[in-house]
Amino acid sequence: MLTRNLILAIAVVASSLIAQSAVGQKHQTGALGKAEHNVYYYQRSTLFKVLPVKSSDIVFFGDSQTDGCEWNELFSNPCCKNRGVNGDGLAGYIERIESVVAGHPRKIFILGGVNDIPHFASADTILANMDRLISIIKMKSPRTKIYLESLLPINNDFHKYKGLIGKEDMVLAVNRGYAKIAERQHVTFINLFPHFADAEGKLSKAYTNDGLHLLGDGYILLRGILKPYVK
Amino acid sequence: MLTRNLILAIAVVASSLIAQSAVGQKHQTGALGKAEHNVYYYQRSTLFKVLPVKSSDIVFFGDSQTDGCEWNELFSNPCCKNRGVNGDGLAGYIERIESVVAGHPRKIFILGGVNDIPHFASADTILANMDRLISIIKMKSPRTKIYLESLLPINNDFHKYKGLIGKEDMVLAVNRGYAKIAERQHVTFINLFPHFADAEGKLSKAYTNDGLHLLGDGYILLRGILKPYVK
Repeated sequence: MLTRNLILAIAVVASSLIAQSAVGQKHQTGALGKAEHNVYYYQRSTLFKVLPVKSSDIVFFGDSQTDGCEWNELFSNPCCKNRGVNGDGLAGYIERIESVVAGHPRKIFILGGVNDIPHFASADTILANMDRLISIIKMKSPRTKIYLESLLPINNDFHKYKGLIGKEDMVLAVNRGYAKIAERQHVTFINLFPHFADAEGKLSKAYTNDGLHLLGDGYILLRGILKPYVK
Repeated sequence: MLTRNLILAIAVVASSLIAQSAVGQKHQTGALGKAEHNVYYYQRSTLFKVLPVKSSDIVFFGDSQTDGCEWNELFSNPCCKNRGVNGDGLAGYIERIESVVAGHPRKIFILGGVNDIPHFASADTILANMDRLISIIKMKSPRTKIYLESLLPINNDFHKYKGLIGKEDMVLAVNRGYAKIAERQHVTFINLFPHFADAEGKLSKAYTNDGLHLLGDGYILLRGILKPYVK
């Protein structure tokens, strides 16, 4: 009985750790230093190194929300390329942006920062990293058009991502900061938040099954919002 | 000190559970019944439902090994479509093949079954499910050309996927069975195994960083093997 209870207790802790590991726990340093990434980051980033970006490309650069989609199919446009890495944070984005800007793509859509939220008490470091990412793109590929998307709302009713619980206000603060960065850096800000939020400001259950990621209908909504910019 | 040791012990057990959960633990039923899938399965399969497959398409149908690649880029062919779902097993494949065959694609490349290995003592159920999957495709889309790929070798030196430890012989048994199924069902069998195996029959460390998934160079090798069939 003791053994059974011990196993149960370990299972509870383990499942909480598993849930937590799914968001924001994959990068050991969230600051600007060289981050320790998980194996999947290296699988994707070595793939991206052997698949060169071209000057006609429209790059979707992000984390799992980007990784999970088939962008060329969504927009019926083979120039649309997926450069998403499940679990990635902005330190990872900064490290791997080189393989994207080296090809001087026509456009880059950036969606990211939510995986960094569990690591920080305020939005400041996230905003500094996003600002730096945009500066790097502008410096290395000045003719690339940059689109900075807001974070999507989150929905903690699913109790799936422990690191995001109570962080609704931080999502809003990041989005306010992103709007300001976009204005200062002269890039286009696309505010996705209100399109996906329900009356309480949570990611609508019509578009998600875990409070963070999109179902097919969510990507269809996103297509409608991004279409004028992708064209 | 006791607390610290307890935390350490829990962390060790938890990390082992996390590693195990990454392969083959996501489907609660491995038999032919309706499986319980994880949230990601539903995110991907609802996306696939809103992105219709066309009769000119070449579909890469599989699990994480398929999901992690950008097939249209790898083959410079916008008809190549990714229908991979990280963590999926053959029961999941059978449930979601409908959205693929409904479009009567030109070709389907099937790579899968490794996530089922932890659930079964022998290869029999895996082979029965693969046989059924191929029968469904042939019945519902008789003009689609089917390519059955062997399982890749695994490499347990990484100690990453506990459910695969000691299962090297089962990979070989599944591959022998796949070759027979392909012959009986008159579909093309592509034996990937020898291309990726080192002298000991393990997935070569040149192509993987976790013993199961491919790095960029692994996908480049795969491209060379599949190219004559994709064309």
